[in-house]
Amino acid sequence: MEKKLRIGIIGAGRIGKLHANNLVNSVPEAEVAAISDVYLPGAQELAENLGVKKIYDDYTKILQDPEVDAVFICSSTDTHSIISKEAAQAGKHIFCEKPIDHDLDKIKEVLSEVEKAGVKYQVGFNRRFDRNFAKVKETVAEGKIGDVHIVKVTSRDPEAPPVSYVKVSGGIFADMTIHDFDMVRFLSGSEVTEVSAVGTCLVDPEIGKAGDVDTCIITLRFANGAIGVIDNSRQAVYGYDQRIEVFGSKGCVTADNETPNNTTLYTKESVSKEKPLYFFLERYNDAFIEEERAFVKACLNGTDTPVNAFDGLQPVLIALAAQKSCDLGGVPVKVGE
Amino acid sequence: MEKKLRIGIIGAGRIGKLHANNLVNSVPEAEVAAISDVYLPGAQELAENLGVKKIYDDYTKILQDPEVDAVFICSSTDTHSIISKEAAQAGKHIFCEKPIDHDLDKIKEVLSEVEKAGVKYQVGFNRRFDRNFAKVKETVAEGKIGDVHIVKVTSRDPEAPPVSYVKVSGGIFADMTIHDFDMVRFLSGSEVTEVSAVGTCLVDPEIGKAGDVDTCIITLRFANGAIGVIDNSRQAVYGYDQRIEVFGSKGCVTADNETPNNTTLYTKESVSKEKPLYFFLERYNDAFIEEERAFVKACLNGTDTPVNAFDGLQPVLIALAAQKSCDLGGVPVKVGE
Amino acid sequence: MEKKLRIGIIGAGRIGKLHANNLVNSVPEAEVAAISDVYLPGAQELAENLGVKKIYDDYTKILQDPEVDAVFICSSTDTHSIISKEAAQAGKHIFCEKPIDHDLDKIKEVLSEVEKAGVKYQVGFNRRFDRNFAKVKETVAEGKIGDVHIVKVTSRDPEAPPVSYVKVSGGIFADMTIHDFDMVRFLSGSEVTEVSAVGTCLVDPEIGKAGDVDTCIITLRFANGAIGVIDNSRQAVYGYDQRIEVFGSKGCVTADNETPNNTTLYTKESVSKEKPLYFFLERYNDAFIEEERAFVKACLNGTDTPVNAFDGLQPVLIALAAQKSCDLGGVPVKVGE
Amino acid sequence: MEKKLRIGIIGAGRIGKLHANNLVNSVPEAEVAAISDVYLPGAQELAENLGVKKIYDDYTKILQDPEVDAVFICSSTDTHSIISKEAAQAGKHIFCEKPIDHDLDKIKEVLSEVEKAGVKYQVGFNRRFDRNFAKVKETVAEGKIGDVHIVKVTSRDPEAPPVSYVKVSGGIFADMTIHDFDMVRFLSGSEVTEVSAVGTCLVDPEIGKAGDVDTCIITLRFANGAIGVIDNSRQAVYGYDQRIEVFGSKGCVTADNETPNNTTLYTKESVSKEKPLYFFLERYNDAFIEEERAFVKACLNGTDTPVNAFDGLQPVLIALAAQKSCDLGGVPVKVGE
Repeated sequence: MEKKLRIGIIGAGRIGKLHANNLVNSVPEAEVAAISDVYLPGAQELAENLGVKKIYDDYTKILQDPEVDAVFICSSTDTHSIISKEAAQAGKHIFCEKPIDHDLDKIKEVLSEVEKAGVKYQVGFNRRFDRNFAKVKETVAEGKIGDVHIVKVTSRDPEAPPVSYVKVSGGIFADMTIHDFDMVRFLSGSEVTEVSAVGTCLVDPEIGKAGDVDTCIITLRFANGAIGVIDNSRQAVYGYDQRIEVFGSKGCVTADNETPNNTTLYTKESVSKEKPLYFFLERYNDAFIEEERAFVKACLNGTDTPVNAFDGLQPVLIALAAQKSCDLGGVPVKVGE
Repeated sequence: MEKKLRIGIIGAGRIGKLHANNLVNSVPEAEVAAISDVYLPGAQELAENLGVKKIYDDYTKILQDPEVDAVFICSSTDTHSIISKEAAQAGKHIFCEKPIDHDLDKIKEVLSEVEKAGVKYQVGFNRRFDRNFAKVKETVAEGKIGDVHIVKVTSRDPEAPPVSYVKVSGGIFADMTIHDFDMVRFLSGSEVTEVSAVGTCLVDPEIGKAGDVDTCIITLRFANGAIGVIDNSRQAVYGYDQRIEVFGSKGCVTADNETPNNTTLYTKESVSKEKPLYFFLERYNDAFIEEERAFVKACLNGTDTPVNAFDGLQPVLIALAAQKSCDLGGVPVKVGE
Repeated sequence: MEKKLRIGIIGAGRIGKLHANNLVNSVPEAEVAAISDVYLPGAQELAENLGVKKIYDDYTKILQDPEVDAVFICSSTDTHSIISKEAAQAGKHIFCEKPIDHDLDKIKEVLSEVEKAGVKYQVGFNRRFDRNFAKVKETVAEGKIGDVHIVKVTSRDPEAPPVSYVKVSGGIFADMTIHDFDMVRFLSGSEVTEVSAVGTCLVDPEIGKAGDVDTCIITLRFANGAIGVIDNSRQAVYGYDQRIEVFGSKGCVTADNETPNNTTLYTKESVSKEKPLYFFLERYNDAFIEEERAFVKACLNGTDTPVNAFDGLQPVLIALAAQKSCDLGGVPVKVGE
Repeated sequence: MEKKLRIGIIGAGRIGKLHANNLVNSVPEAEVAAISDVYLPGAQELAENLGVKKIYDDYTKILQDPEVDAVFICSSTDTHSIISKEAAQAGKHIFCEKPIDHDLDKIKEVLSEVEKAGVKYQVGFNRRFDRNFAKVKETVAEGKIGDVHIVKVTSRDPEAPPVSYVKVSGGIFADMTIHDFDMVRFLSGSEVTEVSAVGTCLVDPEIGKAGDVDTCIITLRFANGAIGVIDNSRQAVYGYDQRIEVFGSKGCVTADNETPNNTTLYTKESVSKEKPLYFFLERYNDAFIEEERAFVKACLNGTDTPVNAFDGLQPVLIALAAQKSCDLGGVPVKVGE
């Protein structure tokens, strides 16, 4: 049997469980060697289900374990950057859920430590691994639509999160649009240089009272001269709406929503098809597995990860600019200012 | 046989010919009574083809003719407002090609004269009559998607016009986006209050040298709180790309491109479908006929026209704001400022 | 003005009105010169609406009129063959609604008279002129799917006719499937040599009592070796279902239903699109105009009509064989036996 | 950890490997306890990859093993019925690849032994578990299309098998259409009572020389009065073409092909989408996993398997009738005659 990557899962919440289960069931080159959670029973239950032996309530035990090659940081957002740094110092390869941090300085410290340690670092922008979006990227990269002129992302959640969540989320741009900011970088193959954002509160007035918006449109300029637009809503009652379009000098390529099945029902009343898959767990199920495989492969083969720490930094910079633009009523703001 | 509306066509160029032919062949309640063009042979040829008796090189002859009930102003843009005023003073109903004028004061004079004369006035925003867009409007108006949150228009021409045309066009916002500005008012049922536009020159550098852009994204705010976005390109190599989407609290409704036929070809190489219809003459052929029918019906029945002079004014105001925003690099500009 | 084809309409019922209106409004090279109907007021009303001067209750007046170049035979089916023969003897070009007759000998007499007189003859198989089916034919004829292997036709009416009609219809194969028999000849470019038909009565038991079936599947063999299948129902509650598919050695080409518009509505309950156009008047509106244009052009230019008298004979032969096979419980029957 | 079903894999060829891999990776309630193959190295390699300890060249060792609860019979077709009987006598639950046998008496012996032993028996008609087809079945079963009138199956392989395979395949109806015969039973919820089949050789003349056909259309009658049609080809150059349609008194439901992704590319030349997934391993990947889960669940819970031995018998009876009809040139043949 070939060499496996021995992985420690840090954080046994929803996303930690998802990664642990996928690694065990769908990534043969990976072995989940240890699980930690500050809430020990959570770690225990997950470990038992998956037959994992080492269980801790302190992630530093995982970092000290010489039989762990890599970690998945699935703990709360405010711990991502500090654990990233410590894991790098401990020589572990790192898969970190997004965002690395909301604070630019902390992200830059992570970049610095990762570079110093020479470990692999991958950020959890799983949508890049969606089969449809990956094909769009491939089509663009192969030049089939020529030079990129316009990048469009439609990204709407099926329902708004509770206001308690919104209050600590960092705002819609840092919490939700950040995935779309990564997507436009990925698709265009170019950096975002300037953004302008208009936002409003149409879904839930409580979100507005919490100082956030729930509906917004963000216009972007790219270093290569292209322009782009993202539209977001916290609530699309028909399901998770995730579509992209890249338009260029030689054509256009689009990716549509995924549905539970492709049947069509014709009746006296209507012709109906299935609604989009409900939310990210359904829609990006396969994409999560693909990103895990990509990370494991990069670690085992010593190749580059497909979404590195720099890719974790840039969307945060864009989100900050978008938030500033939105606060200013839509005035264009340079990214990195 | 019922009473017919006797129409004088002013201007026998491409759009004048289109209207004259449609009126004769597809609008039984209309009679083309006279045709004028400064280039007399043009008027003569068209009149002969259609069996029209009265032919002039001076449109004022049409305005003086008591056997003419209404005029179609299809002459060059710079003559629209003056002929509109004179026609109103002569008591004729007026169908005027867009735009009424680029100058706000001249448009307002037209509104004033039309109101004083009590004649019907319709502006040639034909896309409202497209069967797909009309259905979207109906769906929104019936409340099927609830409150409108986001309006999206994709509008791309199949090829850029000659630079000589661009130079006198008034710029992309006044020349091309103006149709989309009308469309978002139509779809949202609300006025645009503020716009921000980013534009660039990616299709033809000569357009940039002429001081215009050929690729742009315009973000809009509406009086009812909704937001919207339009993206334009002067060149979509795959054909005329005209799609809309209205997203709301209870759902979303979209309209797609029209194609020459709905066949699909499956081969070893690909699964292919027809490209969108080439340009506006093909795509909006039926819509032109519907707008003509609507005008004739309003004149004969004494009802309101579906696109009146005020509807001709508003998109010009929006276009001016968009141009200003674009010139300022995307800063939001209030409409009517 | 160019020479026009002067046409006499024989029969002012539904289909006669349709042709007369289309010829007047949409075929500039045609002139409706006379209209006859055994029920004179019907002819009068239609003539008045269209501004036609000559009105008769006896079609032979039209045949004797030297100012009539061609006739449209839109009278009841049992008169098609006799009027066809007399019109040919009178030297008129003939457009005859389908079927020419249910009696093979009578059809053959028509063929013989038409050939003797050297007049143009076209049978009303309008579906060949549908833009989708015409494109499928073109695709097949250009060899894009290679050799034809399988031809499939789905053809279902939106609702069953009254039993009184069924009783005099000649049976489903002669009345309804006959269009599909023409379609498979058209698409395959080959003659049908053998058919087997299974039929049953599932829609309306009264149809069964009248000795007919309302649901059937017909398998076909073609002279070129291909095979095919047609499925029919007298009642598709979601509308007129008319789809085709031709499968071959190098690919497959399909044509889908037409809808009133291409909008899609996404709600909490479903994703819905428009139902197919209701029935043949809606679906084949443009196809009727195209077939009329083709006939007028053939007469004026002295070229072949696209659907000649032989094309009128063959589907009747196939229908007879299908009826026999169905009566025998599905035993294969050779066409022309 | 819950109780697992301990499974012995008999036959380590392509389909045995598929089942073994899926059971290990995607069916947590299953444990692959032993693998046998007459070619021992094949069993060894598979066992090693999956960490399975017990490896045999003689399947009877598996049948004698008290630590094996169930077997997957993935050996050559001619051994299915004898191993089924022996496994039943040994008290093992049985998953058997299709067909159980070509010989009716042998199948009946299996049914008898299975009933006597009271073990679970499932036949490998995996397509029932395809998400699209399962949804069609559900829609029909819920009465959403009313009474079933017409069942249609399009089933075409991407390329013809080698003639050496065709010669021992039992003919296209027993080898390929058998899946479709199961599908029409599944969809209609009714037994097939009569079939007529027309077949021809258009893909590869060698197949014809071997006494088989490669292109065919089969018409079916069901006990509930419905009718149906299947069309097959051994070679669809654009990929595996697997579509179904069920038409009824209240509507129609269809399932389309699956594609690698849902992107669309618009260029000057065409609008193209992805071709269907290549063949059954790609298309029915998820369906294989679902059928395995269903079997394991039925064994563990003591519930009925979703495709039992009787379901294995019926398609063989239909295939025999179809072959007879085809040999007779399309004469209808009663199933079970």
